[in-house]
Amino acid sequence: MMSDVKIVTAAVLVIGNEILSGRTKDLNLGYLASGLTAIGIRLVEGRFIPDVEATIVAAVNELRAKYDYVFTTGGIGPTHDDITAASVAKAFGAKLILHPVAARLLTQHYGAENLTEARMRMAHTPEGATLIDNPVSVAPGFQIGNVFVLAGVPRICQAMFDGLKGRLQGGDPVLSRTVSGYIGEGVIAKDLGLLQDRHPALEIGSYPFFRQGKFGASFVIRGTDQAEIDQAATELHGIIHNLGADPIEGEPAV
Amino acid sequence: MMSDVKIVTAAVLVIGNEILSGRTKDLNLGYLASGLTAIGIRLVEGRFIPDVEATIVAAVNELRAKYDYVFTTGGIGPTHDDITAASVAKAFGAKLILHPVAARLLTQHYGAENLTEARMRMAHTPEGATLIDNPVSVAPGFQIGNVFVLAGVPRICQAMFDGLKGRLQGGDPVLSRTVSGYIGEGVIAKDLGLLQDRHPALEIGSYPFFRQGKFGASFVIRGTDQAEIDQAATELHGIIHNLGADPIEGEPAV
Repeated sequence: MMSDVKIVTAAVLVIGNEILSGRTKDLNLGYLASGLTAIGIRLVEGRFIPDVEATIVAAVNELRAKYDYVFTTGGIGPTHDDITAASVAKAFGAKLILHPVAARLLTQHYGAENLTEARMRMAHTPEGATLIDNPVSVAPGFQIGNVFVLAGVPRICQAMFDGLKGRLQGGDPVLSRTVSGYIGEGVIAKDLGLLQDRHPALEIGSYPFFRQGKFGASFVIRGTDQAEIDQAATELHGIIHNLGADPIEGEPAV
Repeated sequence: MMSDVKIVTAAVLVIGNEILSGRTKDLNLGYLASGLTAIGIRLVEGRFIPDVEATIVAAVNELRAKYDYVFTTGGIGPTHDDITAASVAKAFGAKLILHPVAARLLTQHYGAENLTEARMRMAHTPEGATLIDNPVSVAPGFQIGNVFVLAGVPRICQAMFDGLKGRLQGGDPVLSRTVSGYIGEGVIAKDLGLLQDRHPALEIGSYPFFRQGKFGASFVIRGTDQAEIDQAATELHGIIHNLGADPIEGEPAV
């Protein structure tokens, strides 16, 4: 069955010194991860790098060759430290040009008298890029090839992503079912490993928790074949029951 | 002056399918970023990868050759999907052995009668590794060469990191000073770029915010020479003032 499955992959490239220094906590990777999963795209790598042109160029070129889609966040504002657009242009060997539609949008928004040279930087994209709508603060992101360049501010990044989702082609969606139990991972681990061995096409993850004063774990069964997932879940119910605990569908109540 | 500066670098490798699927939001990269910055170690790269042996081996070997320190998080529990220890051993060409001290710790904690084979997996490290204390749930992390292998559960990861900091040699600390103003980035960008040009040894970042119904930005001046940072901050006060806004030391009150 595995050979029939269409897998579409993605990487997220988070660009910004402020993330690596710890000043700013990233909120975008998790949002993009959930959003991509929901439309059948598998996030296979995340990478966090500083605002250094050579580093951005190398990462963009490595990731766009390796995955179906690449999403960058950060570095598309008006100040000198915003070098993502120029770096992505360089990665593609494209000229950085004033995008006429972006220029018009910014002129309408700021008014010609307030459209500083710095703000006009935000209307520059690699030649051949198509814009990504910014419903929050107007200055657009852009797409070139399989690379989608998004803002770093989470509210803007997330709005841009939500707006561009229609351009993405998902693969077979990853289905999942979660079964939990108040049982130690170390107690169930052996049976869980055997369950995984019986279902190599599935991916069974174990995530411990501590709730209501008790240890337990959630077991997430992921795959593309709902019938096999359900079969494995039934077996897992049996395993938890045989170990003396009550199987719980989904996550336990908090 | 730059040639006298001792720069110590690090990478963080976050390992886990559950992060890439969006099920679990990472909290460790930001914590390690802040903690490393505070002791004069520069986090230069973060990488998020799935629980796939070949991927872990390749990433560990690439990053440990490139940076002074590597910190991994995730994948050291008792279940079949926890493959970090074995993968790190493979990256180093080392045998995965039962670490006698780890075995004793786990035996004391669980009692011999509850020490399942799965739990004993958590006492295995690459040969030659030294343990990293786990004050939360006993099962230790470990260090081999310049690679520090930490748990994925944030409370445990953070406790392990806090405990091992004494083993790390920081470089010259990165000093910083923040000046803010209720002024648009697009208005100050040109002067800010010239300020950066006058102080190439410093790194000046601009981070927009929206507070109390007004747009503004914080400007973070980072470097290793306090006198030059203070000089640049004085110039920045003048720039903000000349543009008609009040310079604010630090972040503005919320």
